[in-house]
Amino acid sequence: MTLKVSIVGASGYVGGELLRLLLWHPAVQVAQATSGRNAGRYLHQVHPNLRGRAQMQFVHPDRLEPCDVLFLALPHGEGAKAIEHYTSLAPTIIDCSADFRLRDPATYTTWYGTPHPAPTWLERFVYGLPEVSREALRGAKFASGVGCNATATNLALLPLVRAGLIDQSKPVVVEVKVGSSEGGASSSDSSHHPERAGVVRSFAPVGHRHTAEVEQVTGLSNVHLSITSVELVRGALATAHAFAAQPISEKELWQAYRSFVKDQPFLRIVKERQGIYRFPEPKILAGSNFADLGFALDPASGRIVSICALDNLMKGASGSAVQCMNLMCGLEETLGLEFPGLHPV
Amino acid sequence: MTLKVSIVGASGYVGGELLRLLLWHPAVQVAQATSGRNAGRYLHQVHPNLRGRAQMQFVHPDRLEPCDVLFLALPHGEGAKAIEHYTSLAPTIIDCSADFRLRDPATYTTWYGTPHPAPTWLERFVYGLPEVSREALRGAKFASGVGCNATATNLALLPLVRAGLIDQSKPVVVEVKVGSSEGGASSSDSSHHPERAGVVRSFAPVGHRHTAEVEQVTGLSNVHLSITSVELVRGALATAHAFAAQPISEKELWQAYRSFVKDQPFLRIVKERQGIYRFPEPKILAGSNFADLGFALDPASGRIVSICALDNLMKGASGSAVQCMNLMCGLEETLGLEFPGLHPV
Amino acid sequence: MTLKVSIVGASGYVGGELLRLLLWHPAVQVAQATSGRNAGRYLHQVHPNLRGRAQMQFVHPDRLEPCDVLFLALPHGEGAKAIEHYTSLAPTIIDCSADFRLRDPATYTTWYGTPHPAPTWLERFVYGLPEVSREALRGAKFASGVGCNATATNLALLPLVRAGLIDQSKPVVVEVKVGSSEGGASSSDSSHHPERAGVVRSFAPVGHRHTAEVEQVTGLSNVHLSITSVELVRGALATAHAFAAQPISEKELWQAYRSFVKDQPFLRIVKERQGIYRFPEPKILAGSNFADLGFALDPASGRIVSICALDNLMKGASGSAVQCMNLMCGLEETLGLEFPGLHPV
Amino acid sequence: MTLKVSIVGASGYVGGELLRLLLWHPAVQVAQATSGRNAGRYLHQVHPNLRGRAQMQFVHPDRLEPCDVLFLALPHGEGAKAIEHYTSLAPTIIDCSADFRLRDPATYTTWYGTPHPAPTWLERFVYGLPEVSREALRGAKFASGVGCNATATNLALLPLVRAGLIDQSKPVVVEVKVGSSEGGASSSDSSHHPERAGVVRSFAPVGHRHTAEVEQVTGLSNVHLSITSVELVRGALATAHAFAAQPISEKELWQAYRSFVKDQPFLRIVKERQGIYRFPEPKILAGSNFADLGFALDPASGRIVSICALDNLMKGASGSAVQCMNLMCGLEETLGLEFPGLHPV
Repeated sequence: MTLKVSIVGASGYVGGELLRLLLWHPAVQVAQATSGRNAGRYLHQVHPNLRGRAQMQFVHPDRLEPCDVLFLALPHGEGAKAIEHYTSLAPTIIDCSADFRLRDPATYTTWYGTPHPAPTWLERFVYGLPEVSREALRGAKFASGVGCNATATNLALLPLVRAGLIDQSKPVVVEVKVGSSEGGASSSDSSHHPERAGVVRSFAPVGHRHTAEVEQVTGLSNVHLSITSVELVRGALATAHAFAAQPISEKELWQAYRSFVKDQPFLRIVKERQGIYRFPEPKILAGSNFADLGFALDPASGRIVSICALDNLMKGASGSAVQCMNLMCGLEETLGLEFPGLHPV
Repeated sequence: MTLKVSIVGASGYVGGELLRLLLWHPAVQVAQATSGRNAGRYLHQVHPNLRGRAQMQFVHPDRLEPCDVLFLALPHGEGAKAIEHYTSLAPTIIDCSADFRLRDPATYTTWYGTPHPAPTWLERFVYGLPEVSREALRGAKFASGVGCNATATNLALLPLVRAGLIDQSKPVVVEVKVGSSEGGASSSDSSHHPERAGVVRSFAPVGHRHTAEVEQVTGLSNVHLSITSVELVRGALATAHAFAAQPISEKELWQAYRSFVKDQPFLRIVKERQGIYRFPEPKILAGSNFADLGFALDPASGRIVSICALDNLMKGASGSAVQCMNLMCGLEETLGLEFPGLHPV
Repeated sequence: MTLKVSIVGASGYVGGELLRLLLWHPAVQVAQATSGRNAGRYLHQVHPNLRGRAQMQFVHPDRLEPCDVLFLALPHGEGAKAIEHYTSLAPTIIDCSADFRLRDPATYTTWYGTPHPAPTWLERFVYGLPEVSREALRGAKFASGVGCNATATNLALLPLVRAGLIDQSKPVVVEVKVGSSEGGASSSDSSHHPERAGVVRSFAPVGHRHTAEVEQVTGLSNVHLSITSVELVRGALATAHAFAAQPISEKELWQAYRSFVKDQPFLRIVKERQGIYRFPEPKILAGSNFADLGFALDPASGRIVSICALDNLMKGASGSAVQCMNLMCGLEETLGLEFPGLHPV
Repeated sequence: MTLKVSIVGASGYVGGELLRLLLWHPAVQVAQATSGRNAGRYLHQVHPNLRGRAQMQFVHPDRLEPCDVLFLALPHGEGAKAIEHYTSLAPTIIDCSADFRLRDPATYTTWYGTPHPAPTWLERFVYGLPEVSREALRGAKFASGVGCNATATNLALLPLVRAGLIDQSKPVVVEVKVGSSEGGASSSDSSHHPERAGVVRSFAPVGHRHTAEVEQVTGLSNVHLSITSVELVRGALATAHAFAAQPISEKELWQAYRSFVKDQPFLRIVKERQGIYRFPEPKILAGSNFADLGFALDPASGRIVSICALDNLMKGASGSAVQCMNLMCGLEETLGLEFPGLHPV
């Protein structure tokens, strides 16, 4: 079986990562990659790592043709506005934006400031994180994307939530440290290298939109996100601080994490007593679809620090989207996603 | 007046920074710089930025001579063991290690794992952070150093503590992001560049010793530190998450911060609505003695995020130590500490 | 066909990269990975990116067993000393060190300071750069490794050499900018992160050993290497300055480069009039086996600047070694080496 | 004496560095800082390191008033077009652009592509590098700026040129590795952090304009510049490869360099047999006005590698400009320029 797959909005970073994954995917033929701004240019003129692989050119979105699977990698809001158009072109849609992640239109309005452009479609989309929606994704027609910071946070918190370990009367504070690729491919004053290099910059100490996605996925209502930009291009590390509902041991935590990662091909526990890589580390995950989980316990206070590292463009965006495609189309879940990451790097 | 000043343990990073400050200090003559390992070598062979300034050589600690002011920049524990010796050589001692920071010997034992080597001396040392001990430091004979992570945390929390704004029934979580110079001048497997470059590494998610120093300075008993190493050589950013004791406005927070930084020559509030540098940022503080403070408020939950950036070798170590010397010796507090930091950098 | 492959010296960076490539190689079963120091530890405790792939442990070199293909990733000199032992264990040997690169024992002595430990074996090894020895490698039993800086330099110069464009009466100056992984996995004072971060450090302005390898491969006798370390973990960029033997046009240069890269699956020409990636760039090659070539011409002086970017651990070491194995064992040359590199990164 | 000094074009990186130097300069009062785009904003809103020092606002260039010394930090071409206006406002002018560096209008036209806007003024400007024009600068009214890459190259070559050591029949190849601040304060696609981070990017392998400035200062006509961007914000390292006119020893080279740096307060020789900092290194010069010089000799070929490190915004621009002011106005040459640089950093 070869799926004919097209990507709308293929000149951004999420679109470029989809191209990298899909051009090498053994069950896929990339049919079209659209870009309004770059129509007519070769893929490698925008994504230099693709040089020599495909002599394909970006096509204008107006020339999008029917295909088997359509990935939308558009700015937030654009996909929802034209969802009827896109669903008329492909039976299977995976939208990488924030448009179809939230179930409740009112929540969308709260965090995105406008009414949802296509609220009736929300319930038709499955949340695109296989680690939480695997069964619903099998055979599904529509899947949303995931937020990168939300995913790092969710995967850090879910082992504790599933095991019922969190004292929900206390706040759960999550600091996510992120790389510059999260900001997308457009340059700005704050992404100018002399200003962005070497920063430890408070990007969103309060009010980050992914909070809604975290609350929806974890069911927690007392989660406090804070996003800090650091010197890194790809990668995110979520450090979540929760308090145990009752006295707990490291052994019980191990059980909770082992239970959570069981049968999850892209989750690993990283918790070593010694060595350099004792906890999850995003730098060795660049290009990989793994999310690494680890934890530490302060027995005196009952504080549990749960840590998740991932590549924001992979498990936090395009990698999860391809994983969804595999599940939706009946392919092996890990197909085309085997790259393990580099070391040293 | 010219003070004759010597530095014990001058080949480490804190010692090197003391040398940089003191060799250019208008009221100081550097008499001796000791190093066991580097005795006989020129200062610039260890601290290359000092090339051309001083043809001084490191001397062996056994050759230390009497002087006016003695800085101790030794590994933890060593200064306390020989404190009688050092106090016999100089009337004024500033110890940069952790040995004399804690007032209570029992707390020292809890966090450092051994009984304090010189417990009767603890009460004779003034805590060496001028922002909290200025009056006690004027004319004092003995001052302790400060912990870099503790100082970033303390300066983030004190504006809220002083104004009584924190709900102490809720945990205060503080994530400190730090550069590699915090680990000192000795290489190790984990500081090997291919392994350390580009990390977001959970260094001490729980159990960091500076917790004791934070509790002592802030009076809080519910502070939860977490230290994460990032790609940076100099600098630390503390992001503290506290909850307001009662509903609060941004304006009230401004008042609390303004009140705290008033008459503090090295504290600045950084909180802008727009621009690139809206919050404190360690990269522009490299080499500077400033600590920058900022904050954000989530009105819905009452979460206050208080942020402090500093250079761990300056305000977090050697800069504060020289500031102490200035106060202890009746000099202008800011003397020799005027460097504002670079931009871009 | 599945080859049973073992790696001697598998805990270094070249050994780790071989493991990454071979554990995912469709025609290979990794039999043993030896390490004296790490015997008994799991692979992922040394190479954290391999976590979850193989529950294999390092074995002591004394326990090395017969296999189909043996990779030697040892410090220079060690493989040659025991070559009779290794050849008794495997019919096919690929040595990644400098031991079997040079054809002339006298040249070895000149650059490595000691007589070659096994001079009679030199002529039995094929030089392990498929771009220059492809036909000799097909079916060969023994292949040498390549030097990373030599390879970047050779691939920059060969298009000009093959086309006879260089004025050999004038010096050819080559500046190679390199990342920290070239120094290997052992930490040292100069690799300590605070000292190594952000450097532009003259590592070997003269006298670099790879000069011999460049002269052997290019046939030039007037090549002047200079190696500068920069802030990068993986990657090398060689910038070679040669002078045209006679007036030349850009078009003729294009022909020379096109002719050289023809039928070379891992060579690409990168030369764009506009855009960000106008010339070869090592950062987008991390993990990839591509070497990218580009050039610029100064018509007034006849200076040709030829540029080659590669990943020192891939095309400059382990990637080329696996490419050799594919050729030596009759496999598809590109098998297991398809990773294109990341962007952004 | 207090000089009333104004800066035209004060919102760029060179202007910001002038502000940093002049606001702390003991003999200067900064009168005005102009910026068309930022008029009305506070200095620290553009240059965050200046926060707390000056409550000064940028003024529109139309409001520029007479002063003692006027620094022009404008884009190339703008200062020359209005030079009559500026000279009517201040008796002493230091222009940091390329406008008045070249003596020969024809050379200007060759490299900048247009006729010089004010050719009769060229001979009235002294070339603003005190290391070559000190006596001419004393009491001069007009000084040009210097090119950063040209200065690194010139200071690398001049010790050899002055001593007559270079074989001028052979090409002199100079590779300059540069940081991102050389590109100025305006963001662009190629300065976008995800694209610029970690690069080793061939910026100008041929055809760099500073060649003209190098030829003018050194008198050489066979110099070949190549500029490569690396991961660094501030700093440049020039590596110059020249060939000795006749056999030469290291001792003779030491004499040439010692003779050149004699009585030059901001030049140092860095050449150590061991240690980490054996050659000049830009990272420890950030913020410093030092230029460090070193060399290596390949006795077999007679190749001399001469190396110069500097901070492109200091010795390569604003630092040299302030040094010029000191000389032009009869002040101590080193006044306000004492910052030695940081280590580690």
